[in-house]
Amino acid sequence: MGFTYLDPTKSAKFKDRYVTKIDETIKTYKGSETGDVGIIGLPSSKSSISLSMAANAPSTIRSGLSSFSTYSATQQKDFDDMRILDFGDVPIHPTSVENTLDRLHISVEEMLKTEACDRYIMLGGDHGVSYPSIHAFQKKYGRIGVIQWDAHHDVRNLDDGGRTNGTPFRSLLDGEILNGEDLVQVGIRDHSNAEEYDRYAKEKGIHVYTMDDVEEEGVVSIIKKEIARLENQVDMIYLSVDMDAVDQAFAPGCPAIGPGGFTSRELLSSVKKAAQHPMVKAMDIVEIDPSKDVRDITSRLAAHVMMRFMYK
Amino acid sequence: MGFTYLDPTKSAKFKDRYVTKIDETIKTYKGSETGDVGIIGLPSSKSSISLSMAANAPSTIRSGLSSFSTYSATQQKDFDDMRILDFGDVPIHPTSVENTLDRLHISVEEMLKTEACDRYIMLGGDHGVSYPSIHAFQKKYGRIGVIQWDAHHDVRNLDDGGRTNGTPFRSLLDGEILNGEDLVQVGIRDHSNAEEYDRYAKEKGIHVYTMDDVEEEGVVSIIKKEIARLENQVDMIYLSVDMDAVDQAFAPGCPAIGPGGFTSRELLSSVKKAAQHPMVKAMDIVEIDPSKDVRDITSRLAAHVMMRFMYK
Amino acid sequence: MGFTYLDPTKSAKFKDRYVTKIDETIKTYKGSETGDVGIIGLPSSKSSISLSMAANAPSTIRSGLSSFSTYSATQQKDFDDMRILDFGDVPIHPTSVENTLDRLHISVEEMLKTEACDRYIMLGGDHGVSYPSIHAFQKKYGRIGVIQWDAHHDVRNLDDGGRTNGTPFRSLLDGEILNGEDLVQVGIRDHSNAEEYDRYAKEKGIHVYTMDDVEEEGVVSIIKKEIARLENQVDMIYLSVDMDAVDQAFAPGCPAIGPGGFTSRELLSSVKKAAQHPMVKAMDIVEIDPSKDVRDITSRLAAHVMMRFMYK
Amino acid sequence: MGFTYLDPTKSAKFKDRYVTKIDETIKTYKGSETGDVGIIGLPSSKSSISLSMAANAPSTIRSGLSSFSTYSATQQKDFDDMRILDFGDVPIHPTSVENTLDRLHISVEEMLKTEACDRYIMLGGDHGVSYPSIHAFQKKYGRIGVIQWDAHHDVRNLDDGGRTNGTPFRSLLDGEILNGEDLVQVGIRDHSNAEEYDRYAKEKGIHVYTMDDVEEEGVVSIIKKEIARLENQVDMIYLSVDMDAVDQAFAPGCPAIGPGGFTSRELLSSVKKAAQHPMVKAMDIVEIDPSKDVRDITSRLAAHVMMRFMYK
Amino acid sequence: MGFTYLDPTKSAKFKDRYVTKIDETIKTYKGSETGDVGIIGLPSSKSSISLSMAANAPSTIRSGLSSFSTYSATQQKDFDDMRILDFGDVPIHPTSVENTLDRLHISVEEMLKTEACDRYIMLGGDHGVSYPSIHAFQKKYGRIGVIQWDAHHDVRNLDDGGRTNGTPFRSLLDGEILNGEDLVQVGIRDHSNAEEYDRYAKEKGIHVYTMDDVEEEGVVSIIKKEIARLENQVDMIYLSVDMDAVDQAFAPGCPAIGPGGFTSRELLSSVKKAAQHPMVKAMDIVEIDPSKDVRDITSRLAAHVMMRFMYK
Amino acid sequence: MGFTYLDPTKSAKFKDRYVTKIDETIKTYKGSETGDVGIIGLPSSKSSISLSMAANAPSTIRSGLSSFSTYSATQQKDFDDMRILDFGDVPIHPTSVENTLDRLHISVEEMLKTEACDRYIMLGGDHGVSYPSIHAFQKKYGRIGVIQWDAHHDVRNLDDGGRTNGTPFRSLLDGEILNGEDLVQVGIRDHSNAEEYDRYAKEKGIHVYTMDDVEEEGVVSIIKKEIARLENQVDMIYLSVDMDAVDQAFAPGCPAIGPGGFTSRELLSSVKKAAQHPMVKAMDIVEIDPSKDVRDITSRLAAHVMMRFMYK
Ligand SMILES: [Ca+2]
Ligand SMILES: [Ca+2]
Ligand SMILES: [Ca+2]
Ligand SMILES: [Ca+2]
Ligand SMILES: [Ca+2]
Ligand SMILES: [Ca+2]
Ligand SMILES: [Ca+2]
Ligand SMILES: [Ca+2]
Ligand SMILES: [Ca+2]
Ligand SMILES: [Ca+2]
Ligand SMILES: [Ca+2]
Ligand SMILES: [Ca+2]
Repeated sequence: MGFTYLDPTKSAKFKDRYVTKIDETIKTYKGSETGDVGIIGLPSSKSSISLSMAANAPSTIRSGLSSFSTYSATQQKDFDDMRILDFGDVPIHPTSVENTLDRLHISVEEMLKTEACDRYIMLGGDHGVSYPSIHAFQKKYGRIGVIQWDAHHDVRNLDDGGRTNGTPFRSLLDGEILNGEDLVQVGIRDHSNAEEYDRYAKEKGIHVYTMDDVEEEGVVSIIKKEIARLENQVDMIYLSVDMDAVDQAFAPGCPAIGPGGFTSRELLSSVKKAAQHPMVKAMDIVEIDPSKDVRDITSRLAAHVMMRFMYK
Repeated sequence: MGFTYLDPTKSAKFKDRYVTKIDETIKTYKGSETGDVGIIGLPSSKSSISLSMAANAPSTIRSGLSSFSTYSATQQKDFDDMRILDFGDVPIHPTSVENTLDRLHISVEEMLKTEACDRYIMLGGDHGVSYPSIHAFQKKYGRIGVIQWDAHHDVRNLDDGGRTNGTPFRSLLDGEILNGEDLVQVGIRDHSNAEEYDRYAKEKGIHVYTMDDVEEEGVVSIIKKEIARLENQVDMIYLSVDMDAVDQAFAPGCPAIGPGGFTSRELLSSVKKAAQHPMVKAMDIVEIDPSKDVRDITSRLAAHVMMRFMYK
Repeated sequence: MGFTYLDPTKSAKFKDRYVTKIDETIKTYKGSETGDVGIIGLPSSKSSISLSMAANAPSTIRSGLSSFSTYSATQQKDFDDMRILDFGDVPIHPTSVENTLDRLHISVEEMLKTEACDRYIMLGGDHGVSYPSIHAFQKKYGRIGVIQWDAHHDVRNLDDGGRTNGTPFRSLLDGEILNGEDLVQVGIRDHSNAEEYDRYAKEKGIHVYTMDDVEEEGVVSIIKKEIARLENQVDMIYLSVDMDAVDQAFAPGCPAIGPGGFTSRELLSSVKKAAQHPMVKAMDIVEIDPSKDVRDITSRLAAHVMMRFMYK
Repeated sequence: MGFTYLDPTKSAKFKDRYVTKIDETIKTYKGSETGDVGIIGLPSSKSSISLSMAANAPSTIRSGLSSFSTYSATQQKDFDDMRILDFGDVPIHPTSVENTLDRLHISVEEMLKTEACDRYIMLGGDHGVSYPSIHAFQKKYGRIGVIQWDAHHDVRNLDDGGRTNGTPFRSLLDGEILNGEDLVQVGIRDHSNAEEYDRYAKEKGIHVYTMDDVEEEGVVSIIKKEIARLENQVDMIYLSVDMDAVDQAFAPGCPAIGPGGFTSRELLSSVKKAAQHPMVKAMDIVEIDPSKDVRDITSRLAAHVMMRFMYK
Repeated sequence: MGFTYLDPTKSAKFKDRYVTKIDETIKTYKGSETGDVGIIGLPSSKSSISLSMAANAPSTIRSGLSSFSTYSATQQKDFDDMRILDFGDVPIHPTSVENTLDRLHISVEEMLKTEACDRYIMLGGDHGVSYPSIHAFQKKYGRIGVIQWDAHHDVRNLDDGGRTNGTPFRSLLDGEILNGEDLVQVGIRDHSNAEEYDRYAKEKGIHVYTMDDVEEEGVVSIIKKEIARLENQVDMIYLSVDMDAVDQAFAPGCPAIGPGGFTSRELLSSVKKAAQHPMVKAMDIVEIDPSKDVRDITSRLAAHVMMRFMYK
Repeated sequence: MGFTYLDPTKSAKFKDRYVTKIDETIKTYKGSETGDVGIIGLPSSKSSISLSMAANAPSTIRSGLSSFSTYSATQQKDFDDMRILDFGDVPIHPTSVENTLDRLHISVEEMLKTEACDRYIMLGGDHGVSYPSIHAFQKKYGRIGVIQWDAHHDVRNLDDGGRTNGTPFRSLLDGEILNGEDLVQVGIRDHSNAEEYDRYAKEKGIHVYTMDDVEEEGVVSIIKKEIARLENQVDMIYLSVDMDAVDQAFAPGCPAIGPGGFTSRELLSSVKKAAQHPMVKAMDIVEIDPSKDVRDITSRLAAHVMMRFMYK
């Protein structure tokens, strides 16, 4: 265009020629591309029991990626050739949660049908998005194993308010989309759940690890052990990361915060360990409400969770 | 109980024997009381187009009342004998907006059936609550006139998302609950509406006053003129106060803020003028999201709007 | 009252039939009830050396309880039958600290005289409240042992400003209400105290553990050892938890914050260990100024401290 | 010292050779200086009914002065030769309000005895400081007139809490330090006072102007009229500026904020008008709590109130 | 792509079919488009005397546009056919202000050479950007008239720090790019300037209006009068809007805030009046630091300033 | 002066006669004093790649010192006789980074020439200040060893923007002021650097420790090992503490925050270990932007880093 400095089509941000920022490696899916990892936003939070603006998280987490580079100092490897495809955000219905859940399910399903990528990351939204998302993966892959980082069981009854963000695993288990023995819950916290739901979890055979178990066994070793078990019984493994599993000092931007959860390092190292297994094909990250956060540190942590999953 | 200072049943807040705080004059309705003004909370904001936590406003506005006293220096009158009844908050449905709108409608209707009070204040929530609320009053009182303080027409089509907070007056007009000529809109702002909805407003005969009209005629004189017109054609008058009619400097806690709106004084004096008319029996206050506010100044302003309505 | 959804006497908050929130198990003391644990608010912070709004903490900590449930996943036990009595807040004197200290002392004393509960929690306020509170317990129980979590000794001289929040243990020791050897201080931090007060602590025989001692020995093992010592020499044990013992990243809402303190987990596990001993009958939690906090995380941590004390 | 750029004894802030910042013209009083205006800080807010950190205001207001220059564009005059003396802040007593009030009184009295300046500015603190301050001026000057900008009468009874920030004018009137007819109150607001205190004000002959009076007559014309009256009956005039007289949008940093108060321009022009009268010798500015403010805009407004007083 | 709901290439934001948001009408300039108004970002703020993050404003102001629609209720006109071209942001040099000023100048010049639009809006950045920008317009259009909304003259000497944001008009006048008599400054405030610069302004023949002049004459009538004068002597008129001309209550996000400035309505109506004149071809908006703002209200006001300029 | 309480020359802050606050032991250097530790502020942050207000940090960190006392409980030692000299802040150039770097270099050099102290602390500012600072020390002391706590290598190329805060160690190495083998980098983090710069670091022989190395070996033991190596090859050791080496939960006030960094305790204990070595003569602390911080906790941590360095 004959401009010396100006380029209306490009960001004017500072560029170091030797640094590749992660957002530079992300391409919008337009119908025929293939990639290593696909990203989709599920900006739904009207199903939350308490008022939540978690629907804003996909854009904040994506922004988080633009602050970090593709180079891993630990692995001594530059992932600038990793092909990341962005499938955009599913438009939600303003007044019907039911309709929104349908849209999420259909959209994840259609994304999988493209067979564009090998692995996928779903950005919530509240935890309600895991039900339609995991269901779509189960249809595609068959028997599914799930490792859930969470302070809560999320197996509430549906009579007290329908499919809220407190019910996704109840819906999956009762709907026989997921077997109890194929579900692992790590980080369950004291005074954050109910006796009835603990009983239900046991009855269904869910493998539950409280924070006390984590302190004793170590979260990485729990993950290792459970993946070794799951790999023999399921067809693929899905990680569901509810950020409120993390201590409130490290993840202040979750709707339901409290003390006594994971440190950042514990979360990152355990997701990394899980992601290294070839059967782990999908991950969702949920329950970040950017309006409650401090300097987006919870979204930045989520961006690093994505990196541990992508750059294995 | 034999305590010298302690009284577990009472607030430990400082008490000046000569000052009556407004909250001290509010009684919980328990089934048989009567009063001058009834208050009900309609904590619904999941119908909002943009993410909103306006459902938290009823409690914040009520708190605002506890900072102010019953004495009007202007009127030289102590309203400590005004009987205010609190009907509490309608429990909303976590995942169904439709169900919530039903609950709001039925609850306002049942409150009116008690005939406990002469006048009522409805605390939203988003503007979506005005549809079920005004409908209930129309059923009870007959032909209803509405004066709406708002930057927006709120007559959006329902096909793009159902009964959102952008549609209450569309629902009322299309549902023939309200005649266009019985609706007055003051404070409509530039670049906050659409040509189609302006056209619709004209077609329906809504009396629309933009902020430019307000600057020219003065809001109090507009209110005076319109009430004089309405009193001859309707059975009662309902005020619907969307706080985003106020300039962002005076009401920063609304979801849809912008410059060029009413000052606090303009809002208070115009509501006061309207409330003095005997046909004005009801008012709702909507669109305050306390999580976006600064020191609750928008809720404090709303508390003063209540006072101008109650203490006429 | 014939309302379908509305109940003016009840909160409209979402209710899951299987979850008991802690606030649902708290009853206001009205003169004859008995319970397992009594709670009293001591909203006094005008004795603070630096300006403090810690007097607002009792209500914020109580709110914190409403976010958590009675079920302990670790203990596999639902404490929904634990009877918690709330004695309310002591009204403080607006302009006389001396009068306020009297009111606090008399009120705690009168609460103990009711013999309504076996164990008690006092919610400050600044640390100045521990002097009148511990004094009341000493009168009732005899020789008293105190374990104090704190970055500071709180044995300042009284000539430089009277009974401030820096003096409670000086008042107790000099007043012979407490023996030095019956006082344990854990979490004392570098550059947060004075040589003279360290000397005084040694002279009086206080058992002092710095953060370096904590890093070496572990806080739980220190507590275990000191309780084993105290149980042979005192009649009851009182825990005094100054939240500024916790690192500023985990407890940003204290007036005197700094780095290098306890993590949340260290605080919770050590309070839990102490609370399990039958001689531990009382605890105060002090030095939270909610106006300085981030998302009430310090008050939420305090709520968990209460749970570790109550649900042993 | 042989440094090229460094000067350890001076601020490294940017300096424009032609601009004189106000703080550059302020000198610390050291025992023999004389000046045009004296400034003293009265950092007392433990007498506030509600928790207040207004004691921090003197330093924030002083900082505000460093953002502005000595040149008045309106008067076309540079006040860089105005001699301003700073008498520092009175050290308050940490636990005794009574002692603090004594210290304030004695310190203002001693400052006046220096006869160093012709006019004085007292920076609060809460409004409680006006009692000891005005008392000192009355002793020195004889019959004193007071113009008080305030939303509140501040004539509460003393039995409900002693000499709080709600009582200064009660103390002055009952103590016969000030005659009712010599006190002018402007900006009194609805629902911010009590009938009994309005009655007391009338009985004592206080000249009271509500915000409605202000809207009708204009604040500058009220001030003009009242000064013309006072000049014939008193020996000097003292201005007492409670910043909560200003609307919450313009002065969000006051403890007791609300809508419907003065705009910034109304405050500044009315103080300017008053300050031009030669009998106006003193002013206090009270009730700013910097911890509640937004970008110190209330303190910046206070700094401009000082300028209107100083640069007449 | 066969997606039912998903469209990776589009925003998932709610869309009302009848509403056109302003951002929907903005096109990126790619080399051959023409339009009615061109926008360019000049994200430079390292020339600010005080630390400033005003370089972030172009993106925040653009975001502001996405909250508002193209329909003007006052003019009864939908501006959805107004063609707005976005030339993007000029990349600034990280460590050389001089180089950055060159880049800004060259980029504005090259934009003008495209002759793509009739009128242009420059989004700063600090006020330093007006020098290179106005210079580019002067080269293109010949004798240029400038109306500057500002609390400050911005004619500081260059010896004390070079071309800071306090010097643009000094550079233009001394560089003979602009005649003093062709420069109008409205909103100059007391205690915000220096005697020497007032003298310089007079010497150069700048037409200066203080806030006192504005209160007396009215800002719209000043603008009318000055444009009538300018139209006879210049070839085009450039508006330079320093947002700190606005009162701190309405524009809290400027680096140099203070009381006593314009209200939002005064700013908007005066810019609108000016923009209606056919010789007004350009406008810059400067001195918004989004990191200091409250809910982006200063950027929202700036977005409305753009609308008043664009939709005349 | 005959004042009973007032002392215009002194702070009115509460004083405990037995407590020495650190700021009480700091003296302004006036030309002839000597001391143990010298402090200088390098308030430069216009060289930052991203917008930064880190230039404000020196004053915030100094304020942090006033909250802490000279007594170390761990060492059982009062450092009230430690003589600390403050050399003030270097005035920076408003528009020329180059000129600013010169000023910083010359000022540090001149400070060293005074030979007033044995050890020095430089308070940034961004990391760009380390280049002129270390250069000055190298000139004075000869071969210099540097231990750098940082998430980033800071060896970017200079062609993309000149001497930014991402280049100090590149400038030092390429300028042969520092040998690669004399530079130790601890805390290097994943996805925060580039392959090319890792390669450069290796080529130059820098000793690099990632956070994974830290987790494995422990930071104190790394420091011990590296100091043992350096002491045999260099003439003095300089510590360069970039606070973004610390995890975002513990140091939220850095421009470039992220998860997975040091805890406060790890930082403090490792700096303490290093400072104990007699060859460690200097330390800088950089990259704190107080405007981004929460309750100044990052500056408070920096103040404690200073204490660990000073009170060895
Ligand atoms: Ca969950
Ligand atoms: Ca959860
Ligand atoms: Ca509306
Ligand atoms: Ca509206
Ligand atoms: Ca303490
Ligand atoms: Ca303490
Ligand atoms: Ca007052
Ligand atoms: Ca007042
Ligand atoms: Ca300017
Ligand atoms: Ca300006
Ligand atoms: Ca660095
Ligand atoms: Ca770094």
